[in-house]
Amino acid sequence: MFFHDKRTQYTVRVDKPDPQFARLLQQAIGGIEGEIRVCLQYLFQAWGNRGPTKYRDMLLETGTEEISHIEMLCTAVALNLEGASGGVIDQIVTANPVVKEIMGGMDPRHYLSTGLAAMAADANGVPFNGSWVVASGNLAADMYANVMAESTGRVLATRLWNSTEDPGMKDMLSFLIARDTMHQNQWLAVLEELGGLKSVHPIPNSFPQTEGPSEFNYAFVSTNLDHPENPGTRWSQGPSIDGKGEFTFVHGVPLGSEPKLSPPIPEAYAQMEQMKPDGTNNIADSLL
Amino acid sequence: MFFHDKRTQYTVRVDKPDPQFARLLQQAIGGIEGEIRVCLQYLFQAWGNRGPTKYRDMLLETGTEEISHIEMLCTAVALNLEGASGGVIDQIVTANPVVKEIMGGMDPRHYLSTGLAAMAADANGVPFNGSWVVASGNLAADMYANVMAESTGRVLATRLWNSTEDPGMKDMLSFLIARDTMHQNQWLAVLEELGGLKSVHPIPNSFPQTEGPSEFNYAFVSTNLDHPENPGTRWSQGPSIDGKGEFTFVHGVPLGSEPKLSPPIPEAYAQMEQMKPDGTNNIADSLL
Amino acid sequence: MFFHDKRTQYTVRVDKPDPQFARLLQQAIGGIEGEIRVCLQYLFQAWGNRGPTKYRDMLLETGTEEISHIEMLCTAVALNLEGASGGVIDQIVTANPVVKEIMGGMDPRHYLSTGLAAMAADANGVPFNGSWVVASGNLAADMYANVMAESTGRVLATRLWNSTEDPGMKDMLSFLIARDTMHQNQWLAVLEELGGLKSVHPIPNSFPQTEGPSEFNYAFVSTNLDHPENPGTRWSQGPSIDGKGEFTFVHGVPLGSEPKLSPPIPEAYAQMEQMKPDGTNNIADSLL
Amino acid sequence: MFFHDKRTQYTVRVDKPDPQFARLLQQAIGGIEGEIRVCLQYLFQAWGNRGPTKYRDMLLETGTEEISHIEMLCTAVALNLEGASGGVIDQIVTANPVVKEIMGGMDPRHYLSTGLAAMAADANGVPFNGSWVVASGNLAADMYANVMAESTGRVLATRLWNSTEDPGMKDMLSFLIARDTMHQNQWLAVLEELGGLKSVHPIPNSFPQTEGPSEFNYAFVSTNLDHPENPGTRWSQGPSIDGKGEFTFVHGVPLGSEPKLSPPIPEAYAQMEQMKPDGTNNIADSLL
Amino acid sequence: MFFHDKRTQYTVRVDKPDPQFARLLQQAIGGIEGEIRVCLQYLFQAWGNRGPTKYRDMLLETGTEEISHIEMLCTAVALNLEGASGGVIDQIVTANPVVKEIMGGMDPRHYLSTGLAAMAADANGVPFNGSWVVASGNLAADMYANVMAESTGRVLATRLWNSTEDPGMKDMLSFLIARDTMHQNQWLAVLEELGGLKSVHPIPNSFPQTEGPSEFNYAFVSTNLDHPENPGTRWSQGPSIDGKGEFTFVHGVPLGSEPKLSPPIPEAYAQMEQMKPDGTNNIADSLL
Amino acid sequence: MFFHDKRTQYTVRVDKPDPQFARLLQQAIGGIEGEIRVCLQYLFQAWGNRGPTKYRDMLLETGTEEISHIEMLCTAVALNLEGASGGVIDQIVTANPVVKEIMGGMDPRHYLSTGLAAMAADANGVPFNGSWVVASGNLAADMYANVMAESTGRVLATRLWNSTEDPGMKDMLSFLIARDTMHQNQWLAVLEELGGLKSVHPIPNSFPQTEGPSEFNYAFVSTNLDHPENPGTRWSQGPSIDGKGEFTFVHGVPLGSEPKLSPPIPEAYAQMEQMKPDGTNNIADSLL
Repeated sequence: MFFHDKRTQYTVRVDKPDPQFARLLQQAIGGIEGEIRVCLQYLFQAWGNRGPTKYRDMLLETGTEEISHIEMLCTAVALNLEGASGGVIDQIVTANPVVKEIMGGMDPRHYLSTGLAAMAADANGVPFNGSWVVASGNLAADMYANVMAESTGRVLATRLWNSTEDPGMKDMLSFLIARDTMHQNQWLAVLEELGGLKSVHPIPNSFPQTEGPSEFNYAFVSTNLDHPENPGTRWSQGPSIDGKGEFTFVHGVPLGSEPKLSPPIPEAYAQMEQMKPDGTNNIADSLL
Repeated sequence: MFFHDKRTQYTVRVDKPDPQFARLLQQAIGGIEGEIRVCLQYLFQAWGNRGPTKYRDMLLETGTEEISHIEMLCTAVALNLEGASGGVIDQIVTANPVVKEIMGGMDPRHYLSTGLAAMAADANGVPFNGSWVVASGNLAADMYANVMAESTGRVLATRLWNSTEDPGMKDMLSFLIARDTMHQNQWLAVLEELGGLKSVHPIPNSFPQTEGPSEFNYAFVSTNLDHPENPGTRWSQGPSIDGKGEFTFVHGVPLGSEPKLSPPIPEAYAQMEQMKPDGTNNIADSLL
Repeated sequence: MFFHDKRTQYTVRVDKPDPQFARLLQQAIGGIEGEIRVCLQYLFQAWGNRGPTKYRDMLLETGTEEISHIEMLCTAVALNLEGASGGVIDQIVTANPVVKEIMGGMDPRHYLSTGLAAMAADANGVPFNGSWVVASGNLAADMYANVMAESTGRVLATRLWNSTEDPGMKDMLSFLIARDTMHQNQWLAVLEELGGLKSVHPIPNSFPQTEGPSEFNYAFVSTNLDHPENPGTRWSQGPSIDGKGEFTFVHGVPLGSEPKLSPPIPEAYAQMEQMKPDGTNNIADSLL
Repeated sequence: MFFHDKRTQYTVRVDKPDPQFARLLQQAIGGIEGEIRVCLQYLFQAWGNRGPTKYRDMLLETGTEEISHIEMLCTAVALNLEGASGGVIDQIVTANPVVKEIMGGMDPRHYLSTGLAAMAADANGVPFNGSWVVASGNLAADMYANVMAESTGRVLATRLWNSTEDPGMKDMLSFLIARDTMHQNQWLAVLEELGGLKSVHPIPNSFPQTEGPSEFNYAFVSTNLDHPENPGTRWSQGPSIDGKGEFTFVHGVPLGSEPKLSPPIPEAYAQMEQMKPDGTNNIADSLL
Repeated sequence: MFFHDKRTQYTVRVDKPDPQFARLLQQAIGGIEGEIRVCLQYLFQAWGNRGPTKYRDMLLETGTEEISHIEMLCTAVALNLEGASGGVIDQIVTANPVVKEIMGGMDPRHYLSTGLAAMAADANGVPFNGSWVVASGNLAADMYANVMAESTGRVLATRLWNSTEDPGMKDMLSFLIARDTMHQNQWLAVLEELGGLKSVHPIPNSFPQTEGPSEFNYAFVSTNLDHPENPGTRWSQGPSIDGKGEFTFVHGVPLGSEPKLSPPIPEAYAQMEQMKPDGTNNIADSLL
Repeated sequence: MFFHDKRTQYTVRVDKPDPQFARLLQQAIGGIEGEIRVCLQYLFQAWGNRGPTKYRDMLLETGTEEISHIEMLCTAVALNLEGASGGVIDQIVTANPVVKEIMGGMDPRHYLSTGLAAMAADANGVPFNGSWVVASGNLAADMYANVMAESTGRVLATRLWNSTEDPGMKDMLSFLIARDTMHQNQWLAVLEELGGLKSVHPIPNSFPQTEGPSEFNYAFVSTNLDHPENPGTRWSQGPSIDGKGEFTFVHGVPLGSEPKLSPPIPEAYAQMEQMKPDGTNNIADSLL
């Protein structure tokens, strides 16, 4: 069950409102690298967690923290949009083509649809999409999904930090960047605890690797038509990272044959000519 | 800022796991009538709220409660999917065509993508979409969006209640139905406090109704070619609900003219024939 | 069955074409508050209507009127984009960075994809989405969906009205604002006719309220950790709006227990460590 | 402006309601091959039409007819779902696993979300998407979009016709199949009138073909590594269909060079190692 | 199986990087008229092809060529974005409102999400959508889908060509325009080989036209309330294009009746008033 | 530039066609864990790669290999759907309710939309979405995105392997599982080469960690209201994984204050009552 305190997790201060920066912040709210995604991802992983409960507990804690981050960013958007009140919107109705296009930099829906508030969408107004919420039921795969989310999330936050000179916004983003630092480390700690790379991989480690053709497990397949020899990279020779094989280098060759599909069944209503081997346009007798 | 307790808001008990019912429950999680939508909707309305803070406070409270509802439903999905372990998935690999199609009733991604856990999607696996989160900046419009969400949400919950005979699930759904009862009343209470129908409407009530042609404000426009006379319905005669006019009945007639657009500009690379008044295929001289 | 007249329902006149305003108008065409949504929503409600036919008839009339509104707005977009012909597009290829960014304010797809015409998309180019079409089969829930759509739609229209100084556009928008006034009243008239708040709520009113735990029906659940006493708001004391109970105020407490899910089934291919109670990375015997 | 008659364009009769067939019909309503798409496509093409008005007039006529087709199909869905009332939904709550999975064949949202009515979605419940509405501003391109829509639409309709034995449904689908026949011919008639293949192509025919390297205009580029000789197909030799060139056959060869991008700019916050030519993990001095 | 050469199919050269043009190029990558769509469309048609294998072979060749086009355009986006490094991004943090809005013309995600590289999205940042990939199983329908894709694609390419003065970009686009010329011809060549219009139509030609009411096959249905006489257009008189009938002109009339749906079933939880013929709000006895 | 061989990379053999398994395979084609996603992800990363070219080269190789995997899976879908020809589709038109629901297990669009071929969609028919293609411009973040994609991809492939008893399908899936093993190792090898966890993290490692408040970098923030002491987990004490700090445990406390937004601006057309501090419904003087 969830509770709240009316204060934010960290200070949200906007010294000089900037409606265009409000648009950029939306990427951190409703974008694929954003906070709604990690919030729901950690919570759904917690709610579906099967296995040691300490991981469920941790996911629930950090998922809850992320709601507070959404709150901070939405507040920041609303405060930045206050810069639109005396300025940008008035300018929409002026004849001056130069100032008018500021609307191009601002998200027009921040005025039209929300009256100066945040949306569950990214910096281009593309809505948040639930498909981004990854909870696979495999703990290690989920941890990688989380490290990836915090890595692209921290990259985004640093770029946002670089896109403003507002001290309040820089301070808030520094806090979020620090939290992303922690969260990267946190999910990596689970992977370490699970035994590290050699134990964790290949994910899932519960599928018997003795199934299937073993020669493809650690072979770098080159599709390059220049046909160079083994370039001796880390991924084409030496021990595999999971410690269970040796990297090799092979030139890709087709091992299968040319696919042969049956002719169309009559009920699929293909063209009649598809039912004749030579593709001529004589009517197939069987169809008449 | 947000906090949690590891216990759920209300008991989640599944007496007889049912993977097909798990699929139906998804509609209440990630569907347009579902809990992710109301949760984010109330929170975004709170975070963007401008005006008396008591409304912001209330939205924050109920938005927080809705996270607890998502949690309950996701837990219910996970518990219902445990019915798949010994049965449904084994049956996938059997040759019996009759039992096999149970997979059709179950969402296959509940096995393939989550390993028996909930998703941020609806009963057809269509992902949650952030566009459903309505926070317009107009308090009365938002209250109607909330009444509507709780009304379609309660209708959904009663249909789910009717779709199971599991006592635990019926009990949990009864609780959610009761909360929807409260929430409908709660948003209506705001509308009452704002002055009721006569004061609230037309929304927004801050736009001067003296703008524009007044004769269209309360006219029921009939597009029916049978051209019946005023049927004397509540919406075609008598005082308007907002108390600011009188309903009338008119037969729709075009008041505008046939639109005339300019010919294509050359840079738009239309067909050359579009640039000739008669549509003939002579090459326009100006294009050569 | 449907018919048309080549003239528009109301005059569509653009005195000074403005390609940036064309972008804003898209929100009223293909946005969630827009006319495609209400058009399809009323028509789908009509086509699925079960119950007194007078409601079906009304929905069909107004759904048909909304097609005429889409037509007006699309025509307005096309006319506004004519301002792009001699100016904006030429400027794209100039070196002047100041005039060039007008393209930022215009939707680039209005040139690239349509050659100066409207799209079935919102002001950010996000396509219309059929999930917004609400037709629940419950008449009262649908009426609220319609009041909500006309309320956010009228808010949008007033903001658009405020975003232009073109007399033709202001006139057209005033007409649409007036129609939204009528339509809000119209759906409210149905709710009045259904008996008003006390009869209509809780929606659906056909589900027996005697089912389930009654103490949650009218309780405001506070999730605020400050634990204030009952603030005495309209939604925490006094009679409920539906007249069927008394509002109360309670501090949220978890009534459920901590969820316990079964360990992963082997066929879900979780990590092996998930199948051990202590989360260590010893291989579970049962998996070997 | 638009008007309606309460009767449908053609008889909609369901002799034996079938909720599973209702699901299949959804593809013809809200799928990419469906009627909402063609309806909006023709209307948007009409409303943006620039050029001879007779094409605008025709698009308006047929776009209006398509609304009537959506109406027929939605009515058919609602009537087929009546087969769910006494049977399918009751069975949801029975313990019999065999009959229960009928829900798998029915769209569960036809009960949960609409209470036995149609949705603006396809046969899998995926919502209609406005991006499918093609109106390019080029008349010939649009006509091909229309022929394509009516061709995939007629293929769909014949497959639906084959999926039912209900005489009423077969009759209604035969009518729709006949209309698709007409509409295919209708759009082809415009292409004929525009001068036929030799005049119409390449689309757009208003772009000067003298621009750019002419040797690629009619060359079939083979990417097949078997390096066969010209197989002598219709598209590798002989006159081109547009009459403006001669088909040739060439083996694909890279004419460009290997792309060279600049190193990352510091503001993009790539990894430091990306800024070093050798990829080693020494910290770049310039970053400290 | 697929292979690659590190060089591009044709030269990709950007003489003067332009981050705003990079945004426009996205339409040709991830838009509905773009190269990801045609690439996947031709490959999916090939992989599902049933009928003469020469068509499968051709689709595979051209589908493979299109991957090379995506590569060229993505490279062009990355090169154009290099113009953002020294300029645009620095300007984001300046106080000058005039230069700042260049960000409005650039896609902000080109900095925030990719660090100056292409995305699988259109010019508004709307993601590529797999629903655009048409592979119907009917060869003629698919060929029209391909002609349509290459026609709208070539229209887009010419508009892009017109939107830049960069010689390198103009050269690359001229190459792509030439390939679209070939591809239009190529798919038309299949239609010719299949027998041309009279043999190919109506698509599918394997459905017996004797089914259903023949009078609707070639009738132009007018929905225009002006009720003009047959205007004598190509599509209202004379032989049909498929040679199988004669065009006629008819005024649309409803041939069906007003739909009658059953009242709601109790399990759908409609409002009680819907179950009463007169719509009054007396409680239906059967519900108590 | 890209080339092809008509043979597949590995044998695709279906011993006993199974249209329901065809539906499951779609998840591996167009789902978020599927092959279109990794194919485009690696190629977009290659095309935007800035930094050492050996990484670009590798991404290009493996991205090209993934096209071959899409091909194999699409072929497998087409072959499995041949099981529908003599059986499932015939059964659609039979009266037997038991066999009929097989259609529920099959994707109906595999017949209706493709005539027995694969689609660019997932197992529920939800279209592939370009937003899943992650190419951040940060090499380490991208490698984690790739490890994550191959981990969830391999989990999916093992579940598919478990869902069939067809020897041909099991063989093909074993090959794909082996390739996922290699690809996991391959991306991990890059991370090792970049210096391993201590050098790579926090991502991006080019942002100066001295910015901002350092105490939040390695603090586990607990939101649990039970307020337990430091549980001594790997992520709440001891050295951080990146070797740059020490994990700590803190109880979450709000460090910010309650947000205060300005009242609505008049141009946003909120309700008048929102502009009054006490929320009463007296008309604000300033608005009259």
